[in-house]
Amino acid sequence: MRGTVMHAPGDVRVEDVAPPTLQAPTDAIIRITAACVCGSDLWPYRGIEAVDQPRPMGHEYVGVVEEVGEAVTTVTPGQFVIGSFFASDNTCEICLSGYQSGCVQRQPVGGAQAERMRVPLADGTLVATPDLPPDDLVPSLLTASDVLGTGWFGAVAAAAGPGKTVAVVGDGAVGLLAVLAARQLGAERVIAMSRHEPRQRLAQEFGATDIVTERGDEGVAAIKDLTHGLGAHSVVEAVGTQQSMLQAIRSTRPGGHVGYVGVSHDVVLKGAPLFFALVHLHGGPAPVRRFLPDLIDLIWDRRIDPGKVFDLELPLDEAAEGYRAMDERRAIKALLRP
Amino acid sequence: MRGTVMHAPGDVRVEDVAPPTLQAPTDAIIRITAACVCGSDLWPYRGIEAVDQPRPMGHEYVGVVEEVGEAVTTVTPGQFVIGSFFASDNTCEICLSGYQSGCVQRQPVGGAQAERMRVPLADGTLVATPDLPPDDLVPSLLTASDVLGTGWFGAVAAAAGPGKTVAVVGDGAVGLLAVLAARQLGAERVIAMSRHEPRQRLAQEFGATDIVTERGDEGVAAIKDLTHGLGAHSVVEAVGTQQSMLQAIRSTRPGGHVGYVGVSHDVVLKGAPLFFALVHLHGGPAPVRRFLPDLIDLIWDRRIDPGKVFDLELPLDEAAEGYRAMDERRAIKALLRP
Repeated sequence: MRGTVMHAPGDVRVEDVAPPTLQAPTDAIIRITAACVCGSDLWPYRGIEAVDQPRPMGHEYVGVVEEVGEAVTTVTPGQFVIGSFFASDNTCEICLSGYQSGCVQRQPVGGAQAERMRVPLADGTLVATPDLPPDDLVPSLLTASDVLGTGWFGAVAAAAGPGKTVAVVGDGAVGLLAVLAARQLGAERVIAMSRHEPRQRLAQEFGATDIVTERGDEGVAAIKDLTHGLGAHSVVEAVGTQQSMLQAIRSTRPGGHVGYVGVSHDVVLKGAPLFFALVHLHGGPAPVRRFLPDLIDLIWDRRIDPGKVFDLELPLDEAAEGYRAMDERRAIKALLRP
Repeated sequence: MRGTVMHAPGDVRVEDVAPPTLQAPTDAIIRITAACVCGSDLWPYRGIEAVDQPRPMGHEYVGVVEEVGEAVTTVTPGQFVIGSFFASDNTCEICLSGYQSGCVQRQPVGGAQAERMRVPLADGTLVATPDLPPDDLVPSLLTASDVLGTGWFGAVAAAAGPGKTVAVVGDGAVGLLAVLAARQLGAERVIAMSRHEPRQRLAQEFGATDIVTERGDEGVAAIKDLTHGLGAHSVVEAVGTQQSMLQAIRSTRPGGHVGYVGVSHDVVLKGAPLFFALVHLHGGPAPVRRFLPDLIDLIWDRRIDPGKVFDLELPLDEAAEGYRAMDERRAIKALLRP
């Protein structure tokens, strides 16, 4: 079958790969309906993260179950399902507390940019939609697999809610969907930090009430200006760099909450300024599974349209162009159809 | 009047100093009934923090109001009052959200190891007891000024509560009182990390259910052993060093809470391990004022006895011995009476 493999930074190829097979009785094999390129895929693409050996790519997926192991009871062949980037048993104490991305049996899921993929711990990982979805819902359902779930977690971790002013650092798909999430969670004011006009527009469509184009010290000052000098109640960090993390912490008022979901790369936090910032800090790999049932409902009922983050759709065979377009910021997010 | 001044690391003297005077209409002057030496006073004493000029010492105090500025309305001369190390207006948005230590008008309070002191923003800072206290309650009331309020904040920041397993890193007065706080907040199990027998015993008196003597990797392993391999729900960090902070984070389960109240010195947190730890992190200078009314009630009703952390009581003139005893860990905490 066809699958996407990164051979080296900048070198992404769609080639013939071995089709997946059931390896454990808890596995499922799904036929991919759509997958996509993640912002985090750009770290190895750009050589910031090492690529030691050819790496099957993709961890965001929706598809139809083809085959399940004998222990799988909650999903059956023919169902349309959504999972996320970590497989989880959804029964351990950590999962039950809502932290499926820290499941004691956690396994990374990969190789979604392909015709088929294997999903471990299928019962705990996959959630079926009420029916086969109409084609126009597929992009939105696909976002629930990662970027929507991650942006949502960022907003929850930042304690976004009624009466709150929420700032979002980062205008990638996760940041834009954190704007949507903050608004859905009832935030009064949502400030998107973005200097790119098309992304500003999308942020506004998703519910941003204010746009701040400045970064760094000036960005912090702009947030303070908008909040009586206090800083935002809630700030979502959706980039993962030192600059964005410090911008997020410094834009938050004492007692406020920073939700960080940008995969951390060069971040180093000094203890003393963090101590005196008096903020709450929470984040990490999003427990997307916690949010999947609610997010599927919101999408199924067409109350949110997160699929708008896909501004490029390509056949799987052109995956390399999806990477290029996102790397060059020509596209916010690329959807791939096998 | 007599007051304690640090001239250089290791050089603490009680000498004649100028008595405080009202400098703003919101000030109060209080006659100190008791003050104490703080663990954070040991940082400059040990030369880890610079002493650029003679520094009046002390920021934990209880005493009797002698004089108030004309704008002061809530405390009157003759009342017994407790304040904390930051003066706060207790009316700004940050104070009203419970973060008085981040008050927009915040001012450090100092010079408490003396006969008298000036307290700025007296209305927002000082809380009067129902009456003049019996002498045996003075030590416990004094703890409310800092170490109890700080330990309590650590336990609250760590989300200690019913059904939770709470670990406390650090067996100084703050750590010991975080044990007491965790228990008062309803924690099911409280693990004190301590290798000093007298402190272990006090931790147990305060409600510790388990003692872990190991530190670092072994300490983390011991906490995991006690929690089915998962880590504690809540961990209070009450030291402020790199080792203790990492020990706290690594002892916390995914989705759990770290409350850090040890004044951060050499701490540097790398982004990636923090990201994948999936913990909540909250702390900083404790908003003691938030907790003062409730803590005074608990002490006044003799439901808690936090004053047990004072294992050394000295006349003010012997303050230097209080520093020495704490520095050499001969005393947990030294109370000074002018």
